Amino acid sequence: MTQIELARKNTNTQLMKLIAQKEAIGLSELRQRIAEGIVVILNNNTRKIKNPCAVGYGLRTKINANLGTSTDRSSLVIELKKLKTAIAYGADAVMDLSIGGDLKRVRKEIVRDSSVPVGTVPIYEAAVMAERKHGSFLKMKEQDLFDVLESQAQDGVDFFTVHSGVTRKNVATLKKHGRLLDIVSRGGAMLAAWMRHNNRENPLYQYFDRVLDIAYRYDITLSLGDGLRPGSILDATDEAQIAELETLGELARRARERNVQVMIEGPGHIPINQIRKNILLEKELCDGAPFYVLGPLVTDVAAGYDHITASIGGAIAAAEGADFLCYVTASEHLRHPTDEDVKEGVIAARIAAHAADIVKGVKGAIEWDKKMSYARKKRDWKTQIGLSMDKVKAANYRQSSKPKLTDVCSMCGKYCSMKLMEECLNS
Amino acid sequence: MTQIELARKNTNTQLMKLIAQKEAIGLSELRQRIAEGIVVILNNNTRKIKNPCAVGYGLRTKINANLGTSTDRSSLVIELKKLKTAIAYGADAVMDLSIGGDLKRVRKEIVRDSSVPVGTVPIYEAAVMAERKHGSFLKMKEQDLFDVLESQAQDGVDFFTVHSGVTRKNVATLKKHGRLLDIVSRGGAMLAAWMRHNNRENPLYQYFDRVLDIAYRYDITLSLGDGLRPGSILDATDEAQIAELETLGELARRARERNVQVMIEGPGHIPINQIRKNILLEKELCDGAPFYVLGPLVTDVAAGYDHITASIGGAIAAAEGADFLCYVTASEHLRHPTDEDVKEGVIAARIAAHAADIVKGVKGAIEWDKKMSYARKKRDWKTQIGLSMDKVKAANYRQSSKPKLTDVCSMCGKYCSMKLMEECLNS
Repeated sequence: MTQIELARKNTNTQLMKLIAQKEAIGLSELRQRIAEGIVVILNNNTRKIKNPCAVGYGLRTKINANLGTSTDRSSLVIELKKLKTAIAYGADAVMDLSIGGDLKRVRKEIVRDSSVPVGTVPIYEAAVMAERKHGSFLKMKEQDLFDVLESQAQDGVDFFTVHSGVTRKNVATLKKHGRLLDIVSRGGAMLAAWMRHNNRENPLYQYFDRVLDIAYRYDITLSLGDGLRPGSILDATDEAQIAELETLGELARRARERNVQVMIEGPGHIPINQIRKNILLEKELCDGAPFYVLGPLVTDVAAGYDHITASIGGAIAAAEGADFLCYVTASEHLRHPTDEDVKEGVIAARIAAHAADIVKGVKGAIEWDKKMSYARKKRDWKTQIGLSMDKVKAANYRQSSKPKLTDVCSMCGKYCSMKLMEECLNS
Repeated sequence: MTQIELARKNTNTQLMKLIAQKEAIGLSELRQRIAEGIVVILNNNTRKIKNPCAVGYGLRTKINANLGTSTDRSSLVIELKKLKTAIAYGADAVMDLSIGGDLKRVRKEIVRDSSVPVGTVPIYEAAVMAERKHGSFLKMKEQDLFDVLESQAQDGVDFFTVHSGVTRKNVATLKKHGRLLDIVSRGGAMLAAWMRHNNRENPLYQYFDRVLDIAYRYDITLSLGDGLRPGSILDATDEAQIAELETLGELARRARERNVQVMIEGPGHIPINQIRKNILLEKELCDGAPFYVLGPLVTDVAAGYDHITASIGGAIAAAEGADFLCYVTASEHLRHPTDEDVKEGVIAARIAAHAADIVKGVKGAIEWDKKMSYARKKRDWKTQIGLSMDKVKAANYRQSSKPKLTDVCSMCGKYCSMKLMEECLNS
């Protein structure tokens, strides 16, 4: 039985107990939220991971780091290093988005090495394998896709992105209304191209019950992908995006009826003043299902710094109720990310998530800031560095520029305001 | 006569014409805003700078980069290099906050080399000079302070931060209500310590008319500093901060009555959900005076990444109506910034300002994103790099990871969604 099914039967599971403890909330409260579908636990039931994570209402905002080989860069060693980096710097989950090299091996090793939940986008493997077998991913058979779902489930994947909302009808809506960038989701574009070439409906929509069967058996959380998300802030919140979100809402209800855990993916590229509306729409149309957003990026012109544009959008989104932030790295739109890009991306996403958790009232969030502020007042550098999100960088910065007076920093030196005030109050 | 005085006499000046052209707005519209005091032009009337800048309602959000020596690090060469970097990466103004070395020489060279307006905090020089002359800045004479204002004005400084709101009454309010971190503004702490030691009122408040005399003669814009700003998000929007803001509102009215251009400085450290309130309060209490915010930082725990925490806060603040963002570098709270920190800080602030300008409806803002999005669709890499906020970094990223197919990037390779869609639509 799945966690949602057990929750609905008022059964407390080991996983629920673990999460309730980690999140410092009541077990029955957590169980109720899982039963309602406003919280999901990411963990394939065939395995036990060190740090399973729950996503949803009232919980700490989680962050995901995307990993995986590309067709141009496919080194298992490098991707495993990135996995280590992502986890070390605080990723709550990772996704293996590999499209190059030995996909099955990469995935298995990432699943094996990861102490946090691992997600995938099964259409990638199905498309790549079809390309290798038949010369074009357009020749993929429907059965191939479901075989991939099954084999990835067996391999222990904890959550699947399925772009089931890329339906013929929703693609027609996109074409009818037009937009600047058509489809920018890799999976969404693959499916749309396949549907057009084969003149068929999206199998992840048409046979959604088969998707549910597999997800149910392994208690894999479905992450309903937004294949029609805007790829430019000029396309944000347009007809196609909303039409797809409505479809995802219907599919989320079907998933819950079948006791399958489900969350919803969201954009993407959104100007600051439309982020709130996007969150409210998702919560309304999908009955409060956990919302997993990519970014959002609040401008398109900062290539090389999209970890920052995403941090702005992610902080606003999470403060308004988004539950799960997918990081964006500085490489986005330019190249396959490096290990350093992964690190910077994770930190930027954590900053966004934590800034939001302060205003969400998540337990322990503001206490962290309080401790840091107090250490600052006392000029207790050891504690300040220990409390920094990236202790290594903070220590390096301090070390690189030692002040003459050791209780201040080299910015203000003896004119440190904290020091002045202390002296003033003690004089 | 000052720009505000001339505007009130319906006189168009060369400066106004230049600004109207740069901002692509009507000259009379601009003049009216200057007359009302909701727009200021930063430019000392004794000199002509290459890029004067206006700050305020309906204009492009401006960004400022802080430079200057510290007591621990005082190299003129390095600060001039930072100046060059700040301007190259897009700072609209800089502030020389030097407290180490030959202050007058550093300031004069920065003023001479800068193509953008230069601001200062005159209390720094007055305090440092008193320390050197009398052994302690607490022995500063009131006249010393006004002498510094006058000499800096003669040297061509375009705007002054004066912490005139750090009054005995407001400091008493701070003490009465308490807060986690008392005074974190360097100038505010110096003044409070001086006031306590000498048992005197703040001369920048008591003799505010003398400040106005000098500002008027040189048409220096006064930036009324928030010496009592919160230094921890736990202190945000507290009694002391608001009491000071009320005082700044009164002083702003006095400045306008005397035809002195004035803007207001704001925090600092604010949790996401209090930023809007802070902007509305300033606009209300200060009759729409341009608002110049430092950050704001939305969490205290990301030492080493405060350019990002400030970018989140700055984007939200500017989208809500803040007019001028003071950058915060990654060094903040840890060390005196390096040239690289300056660069990263400027870019992060520009991202925030531009993301806000899109939603403010500033002319030309969204058009930039539109061009970039179109270049992305076309996989026109030359144009994408040319449109990137940091062309050098974008070019380096692309160069470092050349894809096999030249019209895509190494992230998705041949599975580039843009390429798939193009092929799909053309098939």
